[in-house]
Amino acid sequence: MPLWQIYHPVGVYSDQAKQDFAADITRHYTGVGLPAFYVVVQFQELGESDFLVGGKPSANTVRIVVSHLARHIDEPRRRRRMTEFVNAIIVPYTADRGLHCEFHIEESARDLWMIDGLWPPDAGSEAEKAWAAANSPIPPDA
Amino acid sequence: MPLWQIYHPVGVYSDQAKQDFAADITRHYTGVGLPAFYVVVQFQELGESDFLVGGKPSANTVRIVVSHLARHIDEPRRRRRMTEFVNAIIVPYTADRGLHCEFHIEESARDLWMIDGLWPPDAGSEAEKAWAAANSPIPPDA
Amino acid sequence: MPLWQIYHPVGVYSDQAKQDFAADITRHYTGVGLPAFYVVVQFQELGESDFLVGGKPSANTVRIVVSHLARHIDEPRRRRRMTEFVNAIIVPYTADRGLHCEFHIEESARDLWMIDGLWPPDAGSEAEKAWAAANSPIPPDA
Repeated sequence: MPLWQIYHPVGVYSDQAKQDFAADITRHYTGVGLPAFYVVVQFQELGESDFLVGGKPSANTVRIVVSHLARHIDEPRRRRRMTEFVNAIIVPYTADRGLHCEFHIEESARDLWMIDGLWPPDAGSEAEKAWAAANSPIPPDA
Repeated sequence: MPLWQIYHPVGVYSDQAKQDFAADITRHYTGVGLPAFYVVVQFQELGESDFLVGGKPSANTVRIVVSHLARHIDEPRRRRRMTEFVNAIIVPYTADRGLHCEFHIEESARDLWMIDGLWPPDAGSEAEKAWAAANSPIPPDA
Repeated sequence: MPLWQIYHPVGVYSDQAKQDFAADITRHYTGVGLPAFYVVVQFQELGESDFLVGGKPSANTVRIVVSHLARHIDEPRRRRRMTEFVNAIIVPYTADRGLHCEFHIEESARDLWMIDGLWPPDAGSEAEKAWAAANSPIPPDA
């Protein structure tokens, strides 16, 4: 986590654009201390007849589903800022290219999540810092 | 939102059937006041070996994930009606065509959702009516 | 439910491996009393340029999203066991094959879920046992 699933029209992103987009996403999360490898970005191309907006085939819509762990951000202003932070990452790859874009963030439970068979360390812990520095999971007894 | 992700076997829906299905979905939501462009429908075709039901490849199953915003529908009977409303839309495109179908509705938080960089207006507000009439997002200072 | 969405690199699973994986998943759930047909497994292959981990294209990552119904498993140790149970199913198809793997479990509401237009019976009920024995939904008046 985070997991970004980006549904986009045919041909709007080159491989380089996808890599740039994913690098921008990753940088934002590593900037707040997350290990880079936590950030998984998936691009899925959908043809016009498979992507309908308001009941009509669309070739210029990007729909993004972002999955976060519920971090008990209950304070409305902080939730708003988090959403605007996600939006700021997206704008150069959507609005700035003339693409219509909708996204939402899903929150799921931290205690139902594993990586390579390990429990990810607590947010902000020394162990998380070690995972971030190694950019890799570290078994607890390593 | 709503986002409908429809996973279906190869070749069961023509482009016209997809458009009809999406139009039916859209009509149901616009009927309760939502802007048409809120309704995004994605079709994803999965081959038999990629779509297993009960551990066996399936070529006649449609699995639908509907994402709604949590609208604080906590009253059990209203939740039941909402689910039956979703089912009624689906039946002509599944059971009536001899297809097995399972769906569920996910609810996510309204305050973690943006369209074209804008906060969608409150449900039932004058601003939402204006977005619905324009069938397009309207910046707050427009 | 459960719904398993398995995003994997190109060519890592043969049709037989997918069937084995899905059969293992199914067996674990039927072992706790669920009807086999509740278990839907979808495989989606993503090319390297569409699957980025830490901002870099990845050809050896499997990302799995498991959707469960919220069964009111609130007790932290039982939630942990459930997650480790999911992990145990996954290991032979990921770590044991040298693949990096992350998964999380989403929980959604049981009362927003239908199969073939029917309300699935209560967990552990006689009706659920009948559905499991028939491996098929049974209308309430049947």
